[in-house]
Amino acid sequence: MRFDIITVLPDLLQSPFAHSILQRAQTKGIAEIVVHSLRDYSNNKQRSVDDYPYGGGSGMVMSIEPFARCIDALKEQRTYDEIIFMTPDGVTLNQTMANELSGKGNVIILCGHYKGIDQRIRDIYVTREISIGDYVLSGGELPAAVLVDAIVRLIPGVLNDETSALSDSFQGGLLDAPVYTRPADYKGHQVPEILLSGHELKINNWRHEQALLRTQRLRPDLLED
Amino acid sequence: MRFDIITVLPDLLQSPFAHSILQRAQTKGIAEIVVHSLRDYSNNKQRSVDDYPYGGGSGMVMSIEPFARCIDALKEQRTYDEIIFMTPDGVTLNQTMANELSGKGNVIILCGHYKGIDQRIRDIYVTREISIGDYVLSGGELPAAVLVDAIVRLIPGVLNDETSALSDSFQGGLLDAPVYTRPADYKGHQVPEILLSGHELKINNWRHEQALLRTQRLRPDLLED
Repeated sequence: MRFDIITVLPDLLQSPFAHSILQRAQTKGIAEIVVHSLRDYSNNKQRSVDDYPYGGGSGMVMSIEPFARCIDALKEQRTYDEIIFMTPDGVTLNQTMANELSGKGNVIILCGHYKGIDQRIRDIYVTREISIGDYVLSGGELPAAVLVDAIVRLIPGVLNDETSALSDSFQGGLLDAPVYTRPADYKGHQVPEILLSGHELKINNWRHEQALLRTQRLRPDLLED
Repeated sequence: MRFDIITVLPDLLQSPFAHSILQRAQTKGIAEIVVHSLRDYSNNKQRSVDDYPYGGGSGMVMSIEPFARCIDALKEQRTYDEIIFMTPDGVTLNQTMANELSGKGNVIILCGHYKGIDQRIRDIYVTREISIGDYVLSGGELPAAVLVDAIVRLIPGVLNDETSALSDSFQGGLLDAPVYTRPADYKGHQVPEILLSGHELKINNWRHEQALLRTQRLRPDLLED
């Protein structure tokens, strides 16, 4: 799967894509992540990519032309399944959407900044608008990194232990049961005895029960669906 | 406001904190962001910070001791208002929570990894568990960066134009109206005429109407509250 990310702050995305699972996925050739600097597609000497909003008001608006030029150049090289705009008014990302997107081939992700992007970019080019949650961030870069991370770890072969992604929170509709590791006694705080019992069936039952209890307590909405 | 972030992947967080608004906030002395490498607090030669889960199963669990040692060392130096654990089963971050947290002084953020962290860290140390959304990521690093970004931009003096954060999506309970900038005609796609009219009152009314329409269409849930 290939991701082309268009941003005014390419350096911001450097370290998140160079570590952990995203690095491994790229080394294995399973994911290709290419970050494009929007300023390279500006049409003026100042390499500006924004301008004052029509109708007045505070904040700058990202212009249509640099985005259009970059997207057109990419589309000449390959076909894209989706052109995604990260925006707080998009459809909220969830695990079902991440699963669905992990089956795509080539995807472009646009990162907004400042007061927003010219609405015509959204009208003409964008096929999907995604929010990572109901909060405002400085730009679309961190949301793009979050989206790529959520998707890439679901592509078969990326995680070392393929069962890991399947037993994650949400995949089974329940939150995870609590987990414990050594020492069994930490300053008087004990690991639940059942986990030390060796009874696999009892342990599995306990975990399911705990997962249910935790979901009921913290996220009853997950049980309603 | 000071953030101490404890992570097994300190390098992953390097570039997000070195750019844009987070960099500016640190340069201005408004926010201090310190990233701590969890491995520095390991108690063995291999600098390991995880171990097998009690009761069996796939995935590794992060041990209590390195986190405990790092948190205790930080607490000796100053008082903390919150010790936050980023986890998909936490309370979902929203703009109200970001507003509230932007009034805090010192905050520790723990980043989980692998199969999770020993439940006793949560029971003994953590004062708040926060999720950035209903999806699973490789670790708590990107969520920590998202949380810090959402909070820091709300601290007075961080944004250049103080009205900008106030007029963001969600702050007024409505999504933003569409925005446009030059050119007025892009390959036949025109900017709405009202925005070129110069009638400030009419433009404000149009924007409010558009914000309402967009909210009704995309996020009717925001109007119910």
